[in-house]
Amino acid sequence: MSNSHYVTGLRAVEQLLATPGGDVRKLYVEYKSANPRVAALIELAKSQEIETQPANRARLTQMSGESRHQGIVAEVSRSSVLDEGALRTLVENRLVNEQDGPLMLLVLDGIQDTHNLGACLRTADAAGVDAVVVPRHGAVGLTPTVSKIAAGAAESVPFATVGNIGRVLNWLADYGITLVGTSDAGSESLFDADLSGPIVFVMGREQSGLRKSVADRCDLLVNLPMRGSVQSLNVSVATGICLYEAVRQRRADK
Amino acid sequence: MSNSHYVTGLRAVEQLLATPGGDVRKLYVEYKSANPRVAALIELAKSQEIETQPANRARLTQMSGESRHQGIVAEVSRSSVLDEGALRTLVENRLVNEQDGPLMLLVLDGIQDTHNLGACLRTADAAGVDAVVVPRHGAVGLTPTVSKIAAGAAESVPFATVGNIGRVLNWLADYGITLVGTSDAGSESLFDADLSGPIVFVMGREQSGLRKSVADRCDLLVNLPMRGSVQSLNVSVATGICLYEAVRQRRADK
Repeated sequence: MSNSHYVTGLRAVEQLLATPGGDVRKLYVEYKSANPRVAALIELAKSQEIETQPANRARLTQMSGESRHQGIVAEVSRSSVLDEGALRTLVENRLVNEQDGPLMLLVLDGIQDTHNLGACLRTADAAGVDAVVVPRHGAVGLTPTVSKIAAGAAESVPFATVGNIGRVLNWLADYGITLVGTSDAGSESLFDADLSGPIVFVMGREQSGLRKSVADRCDLLVNLPMRGSVQSLNVSVATGICLYEAVRQRRADK
Repeated sequence: MSNSHYVTGLRAVEQLLATPGGDVRKLYVEYKSANPRVAALIELAKSQEIETQPANRARLTQMSGESRHQGIVAEVSRSSVLDEGALRTLVENRLVNEQDGPLMLLVLDGIQDTHNLGACLRTADAAGVDAVVVPRHGAVGLTPTVSKIAAGAAESVPFATVGNIGRVLNWLADYGITLVGTSDAGSESLFDADLSGPIVFVMGREQSGLRKSVADRCDLLVNLPMRGSVQSLNVSVATGICLYEAVRQRRADK
């Protein structure tokens, strides 16, 4: 993964500049824009000593790989993509320091859709997830569309890419962290599961769900009640429901 | 709204044929397809006395307005788009007959994105929502992309389009149904709200949220805890968390 990437669109760039440590290197702005939101962003960038550079529409599209950039592109240095070693350090530090509540990780095993990954990152940030873990291969990465949908969270939530999800789950289990997989075939309702301790939620890919080898590693397989005719939820919606059930249970403890 | 529409893609059509009352009029299949899932769908259609007609790729695209149809398009008669009068009848019937639990409606006041509407319909179906209500103008309608994302729910969950959302909220309030709006500025946490009686969840549009005139009509404005740097969730994720918190509370009552 390159050490810089591009975030496009007014809302995403606004969120990014409002985020401490958003690591914006440079702002590229369509030079004919008369939008007051763009003007406000240029002012905000100036106050943060971020350089603004004019660029035309075609250049913005070419740079970001995204044509719906609304005339604004931020170049971001992404220093916070963690490898497996850095993830392990983060987990170890969090296990001995629970002042922010018990550890919560989100493992997304093979998300294919940029909208889904973006929405999952946004929700993970909002729910206070400590890190999102994805496989290095066979899944969508941090594209400009993902950043845009994530509304700033692609830059704020710690994000780890690892070679082998199964191996990571093994060492997480060795630390005594509860691995909670979600599955239509799960034997227990999410709402009956005890989510108050350190946990990892493991979500499978769209369509096919959790791989058997991953499901077998989980301590719990939870389901969500399905009261209608559809058999499953969109993965980003299911992720939101799971993470916020943990938020609710932990909140009730206080 | 036309009285027929088109559903594309293998998964969506599979869900549709598995849904009682899916109202498929005809199946159009790319005549060169050698996909065993297509063959299974043709068999299934035959068993339900649904006519299958061959069509080439270009014809499928032209018919459905969607190029990613995977060689299969179902023509659906959509008899279940409700108008305001039919919605009122549905609500009145449900209020006197609570054998399926208390009434739960979902009002989406101006969703702009097809992915979001599709995911909301899918979640509404799964959570057992009685009807989804949208404004007739200024919002995305039931497009083929919505149907595809909804994975069958666009055909199964009762769907009402109304001219004036405010007027509908007024008569819903007159029936004593609790109107629950979601807002970053909401004074109460979702998890503290009593969702056990008949309720309507009112969700605003992407970006701008609830209109003031709509928020003012709500009995409760609830927020979701935001523990990170983003200020709000994707509307389909927020909808999922709200609906499933109601499912959880009602389940606990039993």
